[in-house]
Amino acid sequence: MATPPADLAERVRAGDVRAVARAISVAERGGPDARALIARLYPHGGRALVVGITGAPGSGKSTLVDRLVGVLRAAQATVAVVAIDPSSPFTGGAVLGDRIRMGGHARDEGVFIRSMATRGHLGGLSSATADAVTILDAAGRDVIVVETVGVGQDEVEVMRLAAVTVLVLVPGMGDEVQALKAGVMEIADVFVVNKADRPEADRVVAAVESTLALRPADASAWTPPVLKTEATGGVGVDAVWQAIGRCRDQRAGGDRETRSRAQVESRLREAVARLAGEQVAMRSAGAGWACAVTEVMARRIDPDAAAGQLLAQAFGAKSGSGG
Amino acid sequence: MATPPADLAERVRAGDVRAVARAISVAERGGPDARALIARLYPHGGRALVVGITGAPGSGKSTLVDRLVGVLRAAQATVAVVAIDPSSPFTGGAVLGDRIRMGGHARDEGVFIRSMATRGHLGGLSSATADAVTILDAAGRDVIVVETVGVGQDEVEVMRLAAVTVLVLVPGMGDEVQALKAGVMEIADVFVVNKADRPEADRVVAAVESTLALRPADASAWTPPVLKTEATGGVGVDAVWQAIGRCRDQRAGGDRETRSRAQVESRLREAVARLAGEQVAMRSAGAGWACAVTEVMARRIDPDAAAGQLLAQAFGAKSGSGG
Repeated sequence: MATPPADLAERVRAGDVRAVARAISVAERGGPDARALIARLYPHGGRALVVGITGAPGSGKSTLVDRLVGVLRAAQATVAVVAIDPSSPFTGGAVLGDRIRMGGHARDEGVFIRSMATRGHLGGLSSATADAVTILDAAGRDVIVVETVGVGQDEVEVMRLAAVTVLVLVPGMGDEVQALKAGVMEIADVFVVNKADRPEADRVVAAVESTLALRPADASAWTPPVLKTEATGGVGVDAVWQAIGRCRDQRAGGDRETRSRAQVESRLREAVARLAGEQVAMRSAGAGWACAVTEVMARRIDPDAAAGQLLAQAFGAKSGSGG
Repeated sequence: MATPPADLAERVRAGDVRAVARAISVAERGGPDARALIARLYPHGGRALVVGITGAPGSGKSTLVDRLVGVLRAAQATVAVVAIDPSSPFTGGAVLGDRIRMGGHARDEGVFIRSMATRGHLGGLSSATADAVTILDAAGRDVIVVETVGVGQDEVEVMRLAAVTVLVLVPGMGDEVQALKAGVMEIADVFVVNKADRPEADRVVAAVESTLALRPADASAWTPPVLKTEATGGVGVDAVWQAIGRCRDQRAGGDRETRSRAQVESRLREAVARLAGEQVAMRSAGAGWACAVTEVMARRIDPDAAAGQLLAQAFGAKSGSGG
């Protein structure tokens, strides 16, 4: 937990890969060091294309990411992959040795790969991922791929960081149902049906297209394409990258502004809740906190009412607790 | 959005099923009505056995829940199922008509089934689920089953509500890897390998057992059993219920107290962050908020620093923003 070196932000901005890795670790630990670092780097970002790629475990999403990285490297773009899928080989699958698929990118400095633990972050997963994106953006990476499983609110929050989001489905796993229900469908810009050589692939494509057809018509809005890939063999991967680019380009102007504003608002709300919580924890450390816990355990007060009292104590004002 | 009837809490406590359904809807909407209701019901809970059941989509977890409900009903226990798995048939799978598996419990007043949307809750999924459990507990349900997919921080948070947690694995889906990585393994009290007639079942059992063997030895602690089931045919379901009961019984006393305290602390932290965020949003509505969003979008300030300023404005004190 040593203090990060004073020139860490400058080294990140110069694109130093080891400085980037260290900066992400600083951000993951949270606290004043993390905030000071992010405050220095945030003004120097905003250029990277952030692509979210989501899909159920087993959908072949990680293989698709691997192949996309190959396409981007062939086009001289620098890439970062932030993998927050617990089943991804990028998240350091040391347990059963599934790092194998990482392929040929391990020694390429133009590809920065970072796995994020799915829990244990002081400020939550979406906050830690947002910080990693800020750092990689300031480091000048052209494309930042955020890879996650598409289940749960956290994952949906993470996807909100992306300018373009890709949802990977696979025939025969009921993923289409999953996607429709999990709300991921609403935020996906590009649909990929991977393992398209499987017999049910066309049925999945048809299911997604018929659901998309139910959306309200809006001539100016982006129409998400439904693409077929066989990521293992690289089939269809170019088309996925082209669709991502088209989506990004069409979003130039007003639409992008609206989307960007919504993203900033969501992130600001998250930051307010997190900082306020930290503040309360700090100021009511000791007796106040322990007393509240005991009262809730004895069911003499409910957690929300107790939280309202703690807030009032911490900030010296009535904080509007209900009940 | 009508005001809930004044006697709603009393009707919930009397076990009125329609009042329970209505109360959960009130809680889901959040706000003062929800908080007043929970404040009235929370003191009357603490008796129900809350069981968390988690597992990847396709693991047969919902079928296992269905069969467990059958076992409990045969023993005259009243049951509630809170399903927050987007792929569960309990979550109202109207999209592709997969409600079928709900089986014979639909018309049994001793089985209350409620699905929770995985997003859109004002206070987050774990808060909404906690409120639902408070309501069902106060309504006198003997057993409350919370069913969720075991991926993501939200799901882990939800599992913290449970006195006993069950992790359902299935051969041939790589779930064991998933479980090991997602951190769910650390909180599971009972492991179930479902679809145990599949050839790889014994390998999965062995993989889990060898990982469990790595835990630090603690003679007084509960040792999670690894059980095999074929939920579709009801095979092994009784043994799962017996293991849940043994775990609950062994936790009587000091261990349960420690666990309960940790659960309350986690819930209190969540409530503090959420209420503080609501308060800031309310007080800085309008100019302050819009200005902060614009400054962050222009990258003149980072989200955390802007959040610190908003907090300082809302609470009339310097709130320690970094940078």
